[in-house]
Amino acid sequence: MKIIVIGANGTVGSSVIEILKSNHEVILVGNKNGDFKVDITNKNSILELFRKVGKVDAVALTLGKVPFLSFDNLTELDFYEGFNDKLMGQINVVLNGIDFVNDGGSFTLISGILNHKPIANGIIAGTVNGALEGFVVSSQIELPRNIRINLVSPNVIVESLSKYKDFFKGFIPVSANEVALAFKKSIEGKETGQIYKVGY
Amino acid sequence: MKIIVIGANGTVGSSVIEILKSNHEVILVGNKNGDFKVDITNKNSILELFRKVGKVDAVALTLGKVPFLSFDNLTELDFYEGFNDKLMGQINVVLNGIDFVNDGGSFTLISGILNHKPIANGIIAGTVNGALEGFVVSSQIELPRNIRINLVSPNVIVESLSKYKDFFKGFIPVSANEVALAFKKSIEGKETGQIYKVGY
Repeated sequence: MKIIVIGANGTVGSSVIEILKSNHEVILVGNKNGDFKVDITNKNSILELFRKVGKVDAVALTLGKVPFLSFDNLTELDFYEGFNDKLMGQINVVLNGIDFVNDGGSFTLISGILNHKPIANGIIAGTVNGALEGFVVSSQIELPRNIRINLVSPNVIVESLSKYKDFFKGFIPVSANEVALAFKKSIEGKETGQIYKVGY
Repeated sequence: MKIIVIGANGTVGSSVIEILKSNHEVILVGNKNGDFKVDITNKNSILELFRKVGKVDAVALTLGKVPFLSFDNLTELDFYEGFNDKLMGQINVVLNGIDFVNDGGSFTLISGILNHKPIANGIIAGTVNGALEGFVVSSQIELPRNIRINLVSPNVIVESLSKYKDFFKGFIPVSANEVALAFKKSIEGKETGQIYKVGY
């Protein structure tokens, strides 16, 4: 398959590439580095990316930012910051990339554990993750040409734990390799509309 | 208890009022009618409402709109229309109403079945419902002064079926009274962070 990995420079993206590259043609896309660059918050940037890359069999998304703030400090604008990046960024790739995905191809999005297992300062993350689950479940029945869509929802990742351990107190982390296996299951399998929880 | 029902003129809101009014002081709030009016998409309108009503023990939200469109016709702006009304409208009431809720009081929000059981044209509804679930689960641990938060997620409602039956093909509808009982459970009970699925 020809697979485009958007978020190629991240911890999960690197593992997804590692696990797929031996038997697939993998296109690496990042915000700043990679075979190509894209800004997923910008429709024209997404269209330009796909026009350069051409038709693909699978799109793997392994990026997206949200603000981490305590309830007392949350404003409406903070929520929209998360909606604009991790949520609508990924949805924009589906809406604008669909015509570049071959029949029977797939999208695999990424969310995270925080809408199921809350942490302090994780309200926007939880809201965005829940929205991504809702989007994947409800869009699965409308995608054209047997195109599939799934979501990978990982626990905190071993390789990122030094950065996030003060947020994820007492969580048992999962390896990036296990998260990448869920992407492989989505891409090489036949399921659609699934939420693959990894490590929890 | 002193309970404010925002969305008082709707099918669910009317039933919630009916079930609560015999043993509570119930304040009716709508977009256009009621004891008071509010625009939940507008922070100042929400603050003005609570300044007039004063402290309450419970806030019940029974309103929120989203666009219903097929995948082919979805744009980023359509998603933001749903985010702005049903999603951020309810979140805004929590963010701005919190100081007007007594210790141990509660918020009860409303979502719907479509992030679990998809229908054609329901992608934005599913996305928004999922986001509301994520918000309730992740905010439950951060609300101050033992204030609780729950979500009622109803199936399509008997009393609205004539309007929606072409969308909800083959769904077995639930009565507005059963949905109202879930609000009563949330308001008079002690649970927090719960998703009360009603009729599915």
